[in-house]
Amino acid sequence: MLIVQKFGGTSVGSLERIEKVAERVLETVNRGNRVVVVVSAMSGETNKLISYAKHFTPTPEKREMDILLSSGERVTSSLLAIALNAKGQKALSLSGRGAGIRTDSNHTKARIENIDPTPILSALDSGNVVIVAGFQGVDEKGRVTTLGRGGSDLSAVALAGAIGADLCEIYTDVDGIYTTDPRIEPKAKKLDVISYDEMLEMASLGAKVLQSRSVEMAKKLKVNLVTRSSFNNNEGTLITDEDKIMEKPLVSGIALDKNQARIGLIGVVDRPGIASDIFQTLADANINVDMIVQTVGDSRGDNAGLTNLAFTVSRDELENAKKCIQKFQSKNEVQDIEINDNIVKVSIVGVGMKSHTGVASKAFATMAKEGINIMMISTSEIKISMIIEERYSELAVRALHSAYELDK
Amino acid sequence: MLIVQKFGGTSVGSLERIEKVAERVLETVNRGNRVVVVVSAMSGETNKLISYAKHFTPTPEKREMDILLSSGERVTSSLLAIALNAKGQKALSLSGRGAGIRTDSNHTKARIENIDPTPILSALDSGNVVIVAGFQGVDEKGRVTTLGRGGSDLSAVALAGAIGADLCEIYTDVDGIYTTDPRIEPKAKKLDVISYDEMLEMASLGAKVLQSRSVEMAKKLKVNLVTRSSFNNNEGTLITDEDKIMEKPLVSGIALDKNQARIGLIGVVDRPGIASDIFQTLADANINVDMIVQTVGDSRGDNAGLTNLAFTVSRDELENAKKCIQKFQSKNEVQDIEINDNIVKVSIVGVGMKSHTGVASKAFATMAKEGINIMMISTSEIKISMIIEERYSELAVRALHSAYELDK
Repeated sequence: MLIVQKFGGTSVGSLERIEKVAERVLETVNRGNRVVVVVSAMSGETNKLISYAKHFTPTPEKREMDILLSSGERVTSSLLAIALNAKGQKALSLSGRGAGIRTDSNHTKARIENIDPTPILSALDSGNVVIVAGFQGVDEKGRVTTLGRGGSDLSAVALAGAIGADLCEIYTDVDGIYTTDPRIEPKAKKLDVISYDEMLEMASLGAKVLQSRSVEMAKKLKVNLVTRSSFNNNEGTLITDEDKIMEKPLVSGIALDKNQARIGLIGVVDRPGIASDIFQTLADANINVDMIVQTVGDSRGDNAGLTNLAFTVSRDELENAKKCIQKFQSKNEVQDIEINDNIVKVSIVGVGMKSHTGVASKAFATMAKEGINIMMISTSEIKISMIIEERYSELAVRALHSAYELDK
Repeated sequence: MLIVQKFGGTSVGSLERIEKVAERVLETVNRGNRVVVVVSAMSGETNKLISYAKHFTPTPEKREMDILLSSGERVTSSLLAIALNAKGQKALSLSGRGAGIRTDSNHTKARIENIDPTPILSALDSGNVVIVAGFQGVDEKGRVTTLGRGGSDLSAVALAGAIGADLCEIYTDVDGIYTTDPRIEPKAKKLDVISYDEMLEMASLGAKVLQSRSVEMAKKLKVNLVTRSSFNNNEGTLITDEDKIMEKPLVSGIALDKNQARIGLIGVVDRPGIASDIFQTLADANINVDMIVQTVGDSRGDNAGLTNLAFTVSRDELENAKKCIQKFQSKNEVQDIEINDNIVKVSIVGVGMKSHTGVASKAFATMAKEGINIMMISTSEIKISMIIEERYSELAVRALHSAYELDK
């Protein structure tokens, strides 16, 4: 098999850890595989370099930041090459440039435009393990760029797609994807397999393991992703195409998103196009609106012709969203604004929902039984999300986990 | 003026030092100059990276070492660019590759083959201070190479030559070149100017400031070199062509080289070609022989037809040299080997010697007056070197410094 293995910062966080990675790569080679390794900077290095730059200015040139930050991955890649060669395994390190990764010129958050697979494939043909410095590429002019948060995962997935790898393994300090956060529900089980779409819906469960950006690219390039731990030999979780999953579970997991805030607009003038105006203003400010609920206003007395509107945004966008809405308030098109950031979103995710009924009603019944008020609901083909009060977070997750028998 | 300024490891050894360097560059720009800066890695960084590599093997791949080590200068170059931009001065960092530095493929000690001045000149034309990561280049295949010890100085001198700079300033933690080592003779004076050839002969005086390799390149490319301190505003020492030096001093300085060992060969068979054989064997082993003295052997009795031979090598080559000679001993062509590594070489250097007599006799008289035995002597147009016992090192240096009135 042709395998891409990506090791994150904690996996290469010390010389001893790099030695362990070399051993694991060697085992993979000795089982008859050809291996491309993508590495992050040693944990702490990138933050150290950022703090160096911030010593001089809070807003360092992005172009220079890319030169600065890309050095961390280069160090790890050459050290791993040295470690493998020391064990008698031919290995060659390549920078993003050397690996043929071409990006746009959007420094510090560049997008991969294309990858020339030739340098990696020819180094593999010469019997090398190829080690690629993750997180980086070069733009059209040959300037170094970096890919932003989760960039090394992205390098790995994109490279796996470009060279037609059979598997892309993402090594972290976590065993894989769980049915829910094990810190909330100790009975949470590691999933053997999950579809790209479920994984995307469970972003909050997997955020520490894998960013949506990488899952989306894996889905697009049909790359079989595995997330597993570099600290043990446990099998990880395979993230793949739904069609390749034989036995589709009704519910795969319960996700909890605490980065939620609800904005209620009281007394919205009921003129045609008002909702569209409000959400366009938010979109123009780059604010992602998640759930929206509109309730018909009181038709009697002073409130005649008024309606209420509520929507959720992520908490870090709350301030910006408030500013957008205040424009409508000052035009007297909105009477009052109600902010609630003591809410969370709990979601039930599973591809099996498509062909089964009763999943939603079980969720509502479970909430009712626990006395938890559901403030907002949204559903998709493979997900049911509910907004509830933050204090019920853990209770709701545990109750749903048990109701769908995910601990069995 | 177009000025290249090179800052060594201690000059960029901390964020505060990098800030100081930015201030100095800015002052240079504000005096109406165009500036190219070449930087080393922050002091300690290169040694740290080397120790990382040695964790895995005493003999890491040189190709991988180059990737590893070149990262240090990249970090400094981007940080300095960030610091300058933060002060409102447009600045752009370039790697060795970005600066157009092409080398051969001799990893860890590559030689610069050519420099394309276009990227630097066009960045200067756009109003930038251009900051180049020293010590590195790329070979024909685009692989990163490094230039070995003193490589950043070499980058600076070569770039100064390629872009036709008026001046190349090498900043270290030392004020410049002194008439002798001030730790030995506190009355030593800083030289305002010295010729390339004198500087080359005084290598031991300047070794900590500037390597011969860089002086040789400066001479070849006719680059005006200045060595000065980044820790104060003192004028440094200009190293330039002899023809540009108006008043040529009789003696410029007294150099002391402690890295010397003497090998005496007793009872060498006096066959034709024996000396040539011995020195060819040493040359083949890459051993540099400095001074050679042959004394006619005793022509009477058992020693008839035998001669004695003595030569000096640097102490770190002593063991290898001994092995070479032992081959002749085992063939009975050399009776005995005498090793003496308690010797030093003291040299009087000055371009004025060419046109003045009496310089050598003053040296010999001075040694005699101090009761110091001269074991070997060699002279060139601008230098007189004497091998003496190590214990007389400081005495000899001080006596000569005073005899030639270098403290005046």
